[in-house]
Amino acid sequence: MPNPNELTVTQAAAAIAEGSLAASGLAEACLNRIDALDDGLKAWVYVDRDTVLADAQAADAAVSEGRPLGPLHGVPVGLKDIYYTANIPTRAGSAVYRDFVPDYDAATLTLLKRAGAVMLGKAVTTEFACLDPSPTRNPWNAAHTPGGSSSGSAVAVAARMCPAAMGSQTVGSVLRPAAYNGVVGFKPTFGRVSRYGVVPVSWNLDTVGWLVRTVADAALLLQVMSGPDGNDPVSANEPVGDYISAIAEPRAPRIGVLRRYFYEGADAETRQHFDGVVEQLAQAGAEIVELAMPDSIETAYDDQRLIMAVEAAAFHEPMYRRQAEDYQPKLRAMLAHGLAVDGIAYSRALESRRRFTTDMEQLAQQCDALLTPATPAPPQADVTNTGDPAFQGPWTSCGLPAIALPSGMAESGVPLGIQLVAAPFAEARLLAAAAWCEGALGVTLYPPV
Amino acid sequence: MPNPNELTVTQAAAAIAEGSLAASGLAEACLNRIDALDDGLKAWVYVDRDTVLADAQAADAAVSEGRPLGPLHGVPVGLKDIYYTANIPTRAGSAVYRDFVPDYDAATLTLLKRAGAVMLGKAVTTEFACLDPSPTRNPWNAAHTPGGSSSGSAVAVAARMCPAAMGSQTVGSVLRPAAYNGVVGFKPTFGRVSRYGVVPVSWNLDTVGWLVRTVADAALLLQVMSGPDGNDPVSANEPVGDYISAIAEPRAPRIGVLRRYFYEGADAETRQHFDGVVEQLAQAGAEIVELAMPDSIETAYDDQRLIMAVEAAAFHEPMYRRQAEDYQPKLRAMLAHGLAVDGIAYSRALESRRRFTTDMEQLAQQCDALLTPATPAPPQADVTNTGDPAFQGPWTSCGLPAIALPSGMAESGVPLGIQLVAAPFAEARLLAAAAWCEGALGVTLYPPV
Repeated sequence: MPNPNELTVTQAAAAIAEGSLAASGLAEACLNRIDALDDGLKAWVYVDRDTVLADAQAADAAVSEGRPLGPLHGVPVGLKDIYYTANIPTRAGSAVYRDFVPDYDAATLTLLKRAGAVMLGKAVTTEFACLDPSPTRNPWNAAHTPGGSSSGSAVAVAARMCPAAMGSQTVGSVLRPAAYNGVVGFKPTFGRVSRYGVVPVSWNLDTVGWLVRTVADAALLLQVMSGPDGNDPVSANEPVGDYISAIAEPRAPRIGVLRRYFYEGADAETRQHFDGVVEQLAQAGAEIVELAMPDSIETAYDDQRLIMAVEAAAFHEPMYRRQAEDYQPKLRAMLAHGLAVDGIAYSRALESRRRFTTDMEQLAQQCDALLTPATPAPPQADVTNTGDPAFQGPWTSCGLPAIALPSGMAESGVPLGIQLVAAPFAEARLLAAAAWCEGALGVTLYPPV
Repeated sequence: MPNPNELTVTQAAAAIAEGSLAASGLAEACLNRIDALDDGLKAWVYVDRDTVLADAQAADAAVSEGRPLGPLHGVPVGLKDIYYTANIPTRAGSAVYRDFVPDYDAATLTLLKRAGAVMLGKAVTTEFACLDPSPTRNPWNAAHTPGGSSSGSAVAVAARMCPAAMGSQTVGSVLRPAAYNGVVGFKPTFGRVSRYGVVPVSWNLDTVGWLVRTVADAALLLQVMSGPDGNDPVSANEPVGDYISAIAEPRAPRIGVLRRYFYEGADAETRQHFDGVVEQLAQAGAEIVELAMPDSIETAYDDQRLIMAVEAAAFHEPMYRRQAEDYQPKLRAMLAHGLAVDGIAYSRALESRRRFTTDMEQLAQQCDALLTPATPAPPQADVTNTGDPAFQGPWTSCGLPAIALPSGMAESGVPLGIQLVAAPFAEARLLAAAAWCEGALGVTLYPPV
């Protein structure tokens, strides 16, 4: 058996439920791993060892008393530090929130706890989940960016400090750091999982997501957190699927490969790697079709950035007017821009986004999953920015569910990944296709830390 | 048998299909009625007698040849002059569009024609379906407003010039003129029927609707026009219901009466009339429940007006910059306002609208239909404005389907109406409830013209 902190969510939950692993042993292994590595990696902003161990011991007591156990019973989960945690600071990586202590938990944290999860701690985020880089370091090579904004969540999962951590994606903040650190990143359809109690960036774009190490774990967390929530006005009433069954015996999927914008926008190494992945999937039995991206992709990314700037400004305006100097430079510039955009420009961007969304929904219906490289290039040796979110942004903007899987290594010794995307609320199909691809590729990455 | 022009859509279609009425006879009766009344009522801006008669004769030929007939075979339908008509002017009531001749039909016109309808002509609209009053006169009393913006469509149907006319509603432009003229006005759920080829006001609000004289006719037109359309980016993929069967034998509905904002915002005569309607429905067997409006109603109307101003400005901006003097005063003022609104104010209004929408969707789930007076007051003796759309606006803003039914007469000799509203895409339930209420109230109004 591997060290407990190396177990996946699914493995750990099964071992705890059958009594072969103590939740407190797992928690301790994770805490020890954090102690050993976090001075260098800086993935965590808040970990309360005593409370974590007490919660894990309570989980063990429940097992020994034979009480009914949730599907995540005793499993430690990290939270990006924009998730509200009752009576625990939620600083969002910003001096602006230096004294903020919420009095309630995010809706997703409530659901995770109800499923038995142990809240391990708060993971480092870039300032307000935006573009200024965080101090977190990539466990593959500290000179390379870990990505952002869910940098701490991705690095914690990659470095085996915990099996799962919650992130959020407004442009590319879950799937990009997943790819840069060699883990699985998942973002459900817009509206599928509640955002209540998560510090907002942009109300039309913000989507909660998570970082795990397998597709099965992505499915398990989705099962636990899916559903309507009257407290999140964009929450959808679509029926929740059976995501765990969906991935049990996945059939070879029909995969739509996208070249325009994605493949064409990637560097030579990424393209070559992607060609190899497509060939490998085809040889394993996937039906590969080439699909034409609609023209509306051309403005999608610019529209999204304008929408994000305006909506972030709408949220931050009172604080920005009072304490602009507390904001980091990239976010400050974005807020200044957002405050200057007029209503008609923003309306046109939203309308153009709606057209793009319709186009992409139609395209996604044509296959089980769309396939692109996860990022235009591997993570660069430059920690002054969080990398290029251009391959994630369109999917966040049009709200389709997406998953990033590790698929290999770059020459520079950092991970490469692929991204699968599906039709709205087709998470069961997406996860089944991803599980099949995960099996066909057989890539699990372990950073040298 | 009544004069052919007095038949409902359902009656006329049945009579034509069984051979007891010639489509050309019906068309001629409608054209003659227009000739007799339209100098005074000014409901029409374009009627091409020869083409109408030729189309009707072609419909008669199809009947005699035994060809398969659509559900509207031979029935004349009018179109608000913001609906695109190939090779026929579409002036939108504005000097700005004085020379505009579309080269294609609106998607709804294509569907109407496919169902066999005969395009009777273009009905007067207020300028660009906004607030400056049109020359159309209320057939009950020319000193009273006919409402707007679908003034010609409502008056044409009320005055028995045609059995059905298409309108559109961005705030209150279908159901308000329906109530003011004593006919049935119907607006489906946002996204249920394509807006492709309709001159826009506000892309987040615009909804096509229609004016008819019975609930059965509203259902028949919905059946013909419902469904997804890739050319309208907000078009929904929800399955189309069987609206005609739904109203066949309606059961006594569960009706939620709303007092806050609606009843409380109505004048004494309207409240008294509404009390009587509620009592009549209860005595006939409806289950009446009092439902509490959410607090989010308080800003709904202001939010909507801001959204409308910005989105109208986004569409009109190039024309407004070039020829502001061609716009009428109320629209010019609205565009000037919309151009001055900043992005964050518009974003906040949209977000607040989203919250209101979620609240109303939840409320509407609690009954078959919500019930309010159709308007705060009967149509006033003032033709310098189109009346108060405050009771329609919220339903357009949150996208719920709504129907107005005539329910009685005011002291001043003009009609009074009620409004029923249902959950998103619950048109079958809404129409069944409305058909039941129509039967229980037994009100058909015939203006003195």
